[in-house]
Amino acid sequence: MEPFGAAPLLCVRPSSEDPDWGGPGAVLNIGMNDARYVDLCERLGKSAAAQIYLRFVQAYAIHVARLDPDLFEDIEKSGQEGLSEALRAYEDEAEEEFPQDPSVQLAAVLRSMARAWEGTTARLLRQAKGAPADAGLGLVVQDMVFGIGTGESGSGVIQLVNSTTGEPQLTGRYLSQSQGRDALEEGAKALFLEVDARGPSLEELAPDAFSALKKHTALMREKLREEMQAEFAVENGQVHVLDGVRVARSAQAAVKIAVALANDKIISREEALMRIEPRALNEMLHRQVDPEAKRDKIARGIAASPGAATGKIVFSSNEAQASAARGEPCVLVRRETSPEDIRGMHAAVAVLTERGGMTSHAAVIGRGMGLPCVVGATSLTFNLRKLTITSPDGRVFRAGDVITIDGTSGEVLAGEPKMLEAAHDDSFQELMDWADDVRDIAIRANADTPKDAATARNFGAQGIGLCRTEHMFFEADRLTPMREMIFADKPEDRREALERLLPMQRADFTELFQIMQGQPVCIRLLDPPLHEFLPHDKAGCRELAEALDLPLSVVTRRVEALGEYNPMLGMRGVRLGVTVPEIYDMQARAIFEATIEASRNGEPVVPEIMIPLVSAKREVELVKSRVDAVAAAVRSETGKDFKYRLGVMVETPRAALRAADIAPHVSFLSFGTNDLTQMTYGLSRDDAGRFMSEYVQLGVYPEDPFHTLDTEGVGELLEIGATRGRNAKADLTLSICGEHGGSPESIGFCRNAGFDYVSCSPFRVPVARLAAAQLALKDNIE
Amino acid sequence: MEPFGAAPLLCVRPSSEDPDWGGPGAVLNIGMNDARYVDLCERLGKSAAAQIYLRFVQAYAIHVARLDPDLFEDIEKSGQEGLSEALRAYEDEAEEEFPQDPSVQLAAVLRSMARAWEGTTARLLRQAKGAPADAGLGLVVQDMVFGIGTGESGSGVIQLVNSTTGEPQLTGRYLSQSQGRDALEEGAKALFLEVDARGPSLEELAPDAFSALKKHTALMREKLREEMQAEFAVENGQVHVLDGVRVARSAQAAVKIAVALANDKIISREEALMRIEPRALNEMLHRQVDPEAKRDKIARGIAASPGAATGKIVFSSNEAQASAARGEPCVLVRRETSPEDIRGMHAAVAVLTERGGMTSHAAVIGRGMGLPCVVGATSLTFNLRKLTITSPDGRVFRAGDVITIDGTSGEVLAGEPKMLEAAHDDSFQELMDWADDVRDIAIRANADTPKDAATARNFGAQGIGLCRTEHMFFEADRLTPMREMIFADKPEDRREALERLLPMQRADFTELFQIMQGQPVCIRLLDPPLHEFLPHDKAGCRELAEALDLPLSVVTRRVEALGEYNPMLGMRGVRLGVTVPEIYDMQARAIFEATIEASRNGEPVVPEIMIPLVSAKREVELVKSRVDAVAAAVRSETGKDFKYRLGVMVETPRAALRAADIAPHVSFLSFGTNDLTQMTYGLSRDDAGRFMSEYVQLGVYPEDPFHTLDTEGVGELLEIGATRGRNAKADLTLSICGEHGGSPESIGFCRNAGFDYVSCSPFRVPVARLAAAQLALKDNIE
Repeated sequence: MEPFGAAPLLCVRPSSEDPDWGGPGAVLNIGMNDARYVDLCERLGKSAAAQIYLRFVQAYAIHVARLDPDLFEDIEKSGQEGLSEALRAYEDEAEEEFPQDPSVQLAAVLRSMARAWEGTTARLLRQAKGAPADAGLGLVVQDMVFGIGTGESGSGVIQLVNSTTGEPQLTGRYLSQSQGRDALEEGAKALFLEVDARGPSLEELAPDAFSALKKHTALMREKLREEMQAEFAVENGQVHVLDGVRVARSAQAAVKIAVALANDKIISREEALMRIEPRALNEMLHRQVDPEAKRDKIARGIAASPGAATGKIVFSSNEAQASAARGEPCVLVRRETSPEDIRGMHAAVAVLTERGGMTSHAAVIGRGMGLPCVVGATSLTFNLRKLTITSPDGRVFRAGDVITIDGTSGEVLAGEPKMLEAAHDDSFQELMDWADDVRDIAIRANADTPKDAATARNFGAQGIGLCRTEHMFFEADRLTPMREMIFADKPEDRREALERLLPMQRADFTELFQIMQGQPVCIRLLDPPLHEFLPHDKAGCRELAEALDLPLSVVTRRVEALGEYNPMLGMRGVRLGVTVPEIYDMQARAIFEATIEASRNGEPVVPEIMIPLVSAKREVELVKSRVDAVAAAVRSETGKDFKYRLGVMVETPRAALRAADIAPHVSFLSFGTNDLTQMTYGLSRDDAGRFMSEYVQLGVYPEDPFHTLDTEGVGELLEIGATRGRNAKADLTLSICGEHGGSPESIGFCRNAGFDYVSCSPFRVPVARLAAAQLALKDNIE
Repeated sequence: MEPFGAAPLLCVRPSSEDPDWGGPGAVLNIGMNDARYVDLCERLGKSAAAQIYLRFVQAYAIHVARLDPDLFEDIEKSGQEGLSEALRAYEDEAEEEFPQDPSVQLAAVLRSMARAWEGTTARLLRQAKGAPADAGLGLVVQDMVFGIGTGESGSGVIQLVNSTTGEPQLTGRYLSQSQGRDALEEGAKALFLEVDARGPSLEELAPDAFSALKKHTALMREKLREEMQAEFAVENGQVHVLDGVRVARSAQAAVKIAVALANDKIISREEALMRIEPRALNEMLHRQVDPEAKRDKIARGIAASPGAATGKIVFSSNEAQASAARGEPCVLVRRETSPEDIRGMHAAVAVLTERGGMTSHAAVIGRGMGLPCVVGATSLTFNLRKLTITSPDGRVFRAGDVITIDGTSGEVLAGEPKMLEAAHDDSFQELMDWADDVRDIAIRANADTPKDAATARNFGAQGIGLCRTEHMFFEADRLTPMREMIFADKPEDRREALERLLPMQRADFTELFQIMQGQPVCIRLLDPPLHEFLPHDKAGCRELAEALDLPLSVVTRRVEALGEYNPMLGMRGVRLGVTVPEIYDMQARAIFEATIEASRNGEPVVPEIMIPLVSAKREVELVKSRVDAVAAAVRSETGKDFKYRLGVMVETPRAALRAADIAPHVSFLSFGTNDLTQMTYGLSRDDAGRFMSEYVQLGVYPEDPFHTLDTEGVGELLEIGATRGRNAKADLTLSICGEHGGSPESIGFCRNAGFDYVSCSPFRVPVARLAAAQLALKDNIE
């Protein structure tokens, strides 16, 4: 190329390598001047040449000389007249002639692009995207091709897959006598590419050009190792590919594309794995509001549990159950949820609460169940006496009104927008299998119910890392014996009440073991304070008094007496186990009897028993000796042998600090980072909602520590606990359970700290599997 | 001495070096047999000789041969007949003759003493007293002296000081024809020692013996370097000192004795300091129930704040204030106390609560105020509707009934037993001065009120280490603007309400500064959650609604909305400072204006401002920049300059872990071990009462960690925080405040960790001063 002597027309465009790094958006052309215009007139005719010159002037004026775009808005005339008018406008405003020297144009264009690259917005964007500080701007300089002129000329875009599904599907548009992305503009009378019943196509108009275009695009995919959207121009019947950008894609499409590229041997499986953002998988695992659908938004809260669902408003768990019994999907609307609402949550398709944050009860349980959930919707006015919620614009919603909860965006919508179904298809399964091949940290799920456990297995969890047993006591037929146990004054009476719970607990565990087919199941002994099982209002107390045949005053007094100032820091966890040992005795027996039952026809089950809220070694010794005694009793009664592992949930800073004392007595330590975060910060997750967003906004905390593991504070305790525990007992199993378990950052942290597994809610298992694979791959590369 | 040939009569008695180590109690004699008896008959006459032989036989039979003491009960006859009967009884029961060979007697006696020394009870006692495992038993073998026989013979005890006051006072008894401690037995017709109007005396009976006895006892004091009680015998007019033991003594007497010994140059001042158990000083600083008084005990609770007081029962703070206004001492009886009861506590002479432990509100405030307090008196039935408390034996106490709270023993007594006044006399002051000369860690006091501050100064505190400001807002005239502030929606309205609190706060601080006369005063910015300032019942809400001229529903809703699940872990401390910054602005201004005011006529005041509940560095930066701005504003408005120091209260595990981040921004870190213990254990001190005693009994925790600093867990966080803080800022001031501050163990821990001071409640300051002195002395010795 002889650059400026012959004054060729050239395109300067930013390299599309890193389209997200905030490079200059415009493609800028150089080389046009009066002399070149004369040439073009001869080649393409006056009208086309004038149109091209005009476009040069406009683009140069706006993007390089930075003149007001409005200057050129009024130029209605086409051809020579319009061009002259534009040149005059340029000269008047820029106070110079339109530059005739291509090298002057080039210098100005480069300056302009550099300015855009170094602009504040672009720099901030690059920083946010994690680009290196010295990231360079790539420029492509290429001969210009016109979509305007004699013969079939025009421009368009093409891609070979569907952006939503990722399935092969030739997609795009073509517009004669156009340039750039004109064909995509609204109202453009663009053609289809392939023959299409809906209208004329490029294939019919210029079959050779179409066929060449298809070949070029496929070649791009192969050579650029990516599914590309090509921008092309046709000049006098000849196809030219001007540019290519990554095909925009949904999460589902991203997986499909990456897997297809790997299966076509264009990229490696490892590269396919690295290309998917783990969190994006969340989108695929739940139903979503169709991005194209119209949204009648009535409020925005905190997106606490992803996915979307539509149902009729109900204001209580009882109504939720009634609605479910009638087969009517319902949305449970509460000020906040408590353990008593578990049944209602199981019956509902989504949950909406006025209060709470990412780690409120509704949010945690919702994520665990894969139930769409919006919490902290404070802009809605909840009137739970009148049973209404009122939107900021004054609309009143009542029980029975249909709303949609979008737990992915945090929006509450009126009515029922169009939905997209969850999509975990073959490509997803294939990608997950590849992830499992490379990752080196195990992933388990937190699962309390058979449904959770089935989901966990379905999503490829390698066991249950945390089975909370408290939910098992809220069923109607269990709550009564539970309450009798609480009201019993003597150990015998407690045992008698627990005796009635035993078969139900045994059935719970047997079912879990059977679903998990020999995979490890880690069962946490009862954790919450007993008052959680008691009624909280007068009516409930009255009912209970009748059920237990006790005077109301006795019930009220006992309920009051069991109340606590700070339940989080009260009589719960192992403190129950030490002071009311009959409960753990019953649970241990249920676990062991279920172990025998479930081992009868399958893999031998090795249950894991986890002691919650430990703060001192002696607590572990006391519980262990009783659990061991129960095991011995069950063995001798049944004549069957079984193994089990006993461990500690590290939730208090002290347990982490004293891990060396505790480790010799146990097989595993599992860090409960929810409670550990609460205690390390001195911050209740239930109460933090009130100021957490302000705190994050002010940068007091870089992130909500209940959402993103605080590696500096809580993380140090994890490291201390892990190191001291392993030093005291080399084969100690280490893990985390709780909300942080599923986040890629936490997995990275735990992997570095030598943990054996992380446990997260079933719906986050795929995210965790992929994130873990990426971490292993990154290590291999480094 | 020719031991057994001449068969001398010898005494074998355990050495009195360590009388508390559980050695054998009995003095055993050897050498008596028929031959010796014949000798004695010649010397002392038959009757005396027979009595002596009989005593030998009895003591040997009971303590060596371990025969039933009852065997000898019925021997009524004296002289030869009684002796023969005793010898027969011995032969019948022991199935051997009374041993005639002194060497056989000696061997048996030694075995018997060794057996007693190695017995389980004695071993446990030694362990509890901290004696070494291989502690040996010292034995004294001496020639026997008889208090029976011809001439003036008898025995008695003497000491030169009063056991209760420690003042010089010759005390003791003498009984003719007696042995051992017979003179002290009830009903014994013992003589006084000195001439006494109440009856005959040894001085009159045998003036030479008396004078020799006084000389011997004074010599014992000098040579044994201790105030001794001597056991003596008179034989034929001649005095013999048989044994000496430390004079039993009250705390007050212990101090008086030690100071006198030092002033007499018998021991050094250092030794005097080491001889006093620091905790024993507690006894002297409060009124006590006279140990001799009859106690009509109605319940026992937790001894939460030492001292005793008598008053009429009142069931509310209002009644307490009314009672105080009438000049009638009253005991405030509550289920538990809350900050709203502060005024009532100030008005009462003692507090009794049904619930709570050593670190409940009532206990902490009670100790701070020096107010006798018994908490957790669960054996009493509190009926707060009928306004009665019922003792386990069915007695009902009503408002107006007089009871006595013994906060030292934890007992609740009916009526008014005899009391001993508090005694901090000259000797006490002298000892404290000596302690201050040697100790190397400063002692400050926690003081919230002028009264506390005066007590603190009076007890020799070197400043205020923790001034909690929340109590200042509960006075009636302050609660209203405080509540208006809470109910304000806009910062301007908040500022307006705070504007009215400013002069009161300023006056509070001015007074404190003036009382402390230039000593440092560390003021903690507002800490509790705002809902603590709101009413907790319907009636209170109604009153508030009227006062604020708001609909009841608005008040009720706001009160509800501010409620928290776990107030301890909620919106309090610096979280208030960050999200409602106007409060700290007002407090900072009050502090600075008071600083200027108080510096006007005295030492320049350098206030210390402490930020509570920090968990992240940024919190400190935000508060610091506002406090600095207020200081600049006050300086420019007044034209006066002043200095101040800003610091952080380390109460969350995270603040300790991140001390290196925080230290560069502050002048001091003060560890709030109450909250730090709560968070490290995941245990609310308000809720721990329910199971703490069981936990300590079971050995789960060796001690209540709210009472005794948990050096293993919480202590490690203190060390981590101290080391990291000092590494980041070498001149950082380090301290602890809170309940643990005053305990000798905590002081030792803090001293080893390089802390600058400890701060404790005013009434524990003397204990802390002495404990700190002892630690310094121990280090010098080692």
